[in-house]
Amino acid sequence: MDLVAGVLAGERLALARLITQVENDMPEGREALNRLFSHTGKAHLIGVTGSPGTGKSSLVNLIAKAYRTPADGRPPCKVAVVAVDPSSPFTGGALLGDRVRMRDLAGDPGVFVRSMASRGALGGLSHSTAAVVQVLDAAGFDKILIETVGAGQSEVDIARLAHTTLVVEAPGLGDDIQAIKAGILEIADILVINKADRPGVENTERALRSNLELAHPERMHIGSCGRGGKANQPKAGMPEALDGQVWVPPVLRTIATQASGVAELMAAIECHLAYLKATGEWQTREHERLQTELTQLLQAVLVARWREGVSDAELRDVVTRLQERELSPLKAVEQLLDLDAVPESY
Amino acid sequence: MDLVAGVLAGERLALARLITQVENDMPEGREALNRLFSHTGKAHLIGVTGSPGTGKSSLVNLIAKAYRTPADGRPPCKVAVVAVDPSSPFTGGALLGDRVRMRDLAGDPGVFVRSMASRGALGGLSHSTAAVVQVLDAAGFDKILIETVGAGQSEVDIARLAHTTLVVEAPGLGDDIQAIKAGILEIADILVINKADRPGVENTERALRSNLELAHPERMHIGSCGRGGKANQPKAGMPEALDGQVWVPPVLRTIATQASGVAELMAAIECHLAYLKATGEWQTREHERLQTELTQLLQAVLVARWREGVSDAELRDVVTRLQERELSPLKAVEQLLDLDAVPESY
Repeated sequence: MDLVAGVLAGERLALARLITQVENDMPEGREALNRLFSHTGKAHLIGVTGSPGTGKSSLVNLIAKAYRTPADGRPPCKVAVVAVDPSSPFTGGALLGDRVRMRDLAGDPGVFVRSMASRGALGGLSHSTAAVVQVLDAAGFDKILIETVGAGQSEVDIARLAHTTLVVEAPGLGDDIQAIKAGILEIADILVINKADRPGVENTERALRSNLELAHPERMHIGSCGRGGKANQPKAGMPEALDGQVWVPPVLRTIATQASGVAELMAAIECHLAYLKATGEWQTREHERLQTELTQLLQAVLVARWREGVSDAELRDVVTRLQERELSPLKAVEQLLDLDAVPESY
Repeated sequence: MDLVAGVLAGERLALARLITQVENDMPEGREALNRLFSHTGKAHLIGVTGSPGTGKSSLVNLIAKAYRTPADGRPPCKVAVVAVDPSSPFTGGALLGDRVRMRDLAGDPGVFVRSMASRGALGGLSHSTAAVVQVLDAAGFDKILIETVGAGQSEVDIARLAHTTLVVEAPGLGDDIQAIKAGILEIADILVINKADRPGVENTERALRSNLELAHPERMHIGSCGRGGKANQPKAGMPEALDGQVWVPPVLRTIATQASGVAELMAAIECHLAYLKATGEWQTREHERLQTELTQLLQAVLVARWREGVSDAELRDVVTRLQERELSPLKAVEQLLDLDAVPESY
């Protein structure tokens, strides 16, 4: 069976098989990505990141269902969910999560769920996530939800893949957790306080807003001065955050288990999409993303091409000389590449 | 002033200045690293990683003090602390932490503390941490403690720098936190349950041991069968974990605020060092680390050399053609590098 043709024809088994090849960076997977590339670039990629305990999986579930049964009579979107859990390779937690999810979404041919829990080299997981998302994009999914645990740099990189990034918080996870999230607010397009019926929700909202102010002083200025305290709460269908073409990250409250706050959340996501399209930001992000992808591929190919001309023995010998401090790494590179001096711009 | 000479002569101001140059990847910093390289490779690098709330900063403080005032009459070690906090670039938490730390260690010329809170590109922080550690190594610090928050891939990479890695837990941080740490156990040489006077310490220890068993079944087999349940608790000065040359990660309890459990912890760290030296593992890790460093530098230089021959306009044009799906990334690389086909091994 030609998996690429199968994926383009909407066959789920072909899709699942090809994703496995791509995830494992197999030669067939690489070739398929190359052939599928011209079909990509259409999906709206939505990142959902948050600490464990914020209920972000339930929220992702809810968003997927909302896209399948739109309230306003529009046709349902095809939805894919990619759940990335880099930190539990042993527990099988990610797989269990899938099963729980599938109970709600099972049997719906317009929904596809995939977990990624493999660990690779530095950047390995964000690289394979990007590749899997490309396959789903080519397969015609309109909305691709990328769920990450959201604490380290690799999760931030995965979130950067997305057009629209939701950062999920919950009351009562402690100040420590709040503090660790400060860096992640930088990438938030929409902030969601889930489990908003819990005590302490006002404190969480206050902490989020003040961290947000530190992260984006210029944005909050517009949010709070330009249109008053409620300005950064978008109303359904109204892209009012577009004033001056600056996006003000709204802070929303949800209770995923009771499906409370969903309409506002869906409106905010679609409002952000409208903002991206209206301002040209969609194109800018796409350009940056493709440039990064190109550079990474170039790097890999340049190293592979160089490596073909060097024997294992020669390389091992150089490392031994490094270990004995006869050579510095810079001198070693000059010698291996036969350069008088390395370019200053490296 | 020649900063390199100053650092080698033990001048603290030169050290602080050079670290700033190295951290910011300035040309002077790169040149200094090259000159300092022959003086590196002597320090014992100790990684300390754990979630916020485990009290790992207090523990690092305590370890530093213990190395400054050894109980057994040996001469004190020179100690450097590198505190890496990638996730709070805005709060200034890292700087505040330094001040709290300095209250205890202030005025001791044998201790040097440095915080790193900058965010860079993917791998940027682990790259600059490695460089700063090299400077401290060349400056003659015997023990370099590298403290990380420990959740994502970049923290794991930073921890991989170390010869000896401590993973710190605490009771009562919730099952979610336990779960997220599973991946990090893979890199643990020593497990520390701090705040061991808190309720739930038995549960934490049980959870850690069972996760550890999943991570290292072969190690735990030796630990539990070969020498009974208490086998993986090293006694002071006795490297009894060396049986069969397999390291059994011990699980230790401490209460950092009361300096409780410190003697056992220090013994375990030194025991691990003895294990590394006795088994040749020290050399193996050093070889791997230098090989990774060499490969990364090669990659950067190869890209820089290629980039010198390409105009900004040409590169922008290629990305635009990618964006319009006229080219795939693989075809773009073939075109930019003037190859018939990319090497299969990329």
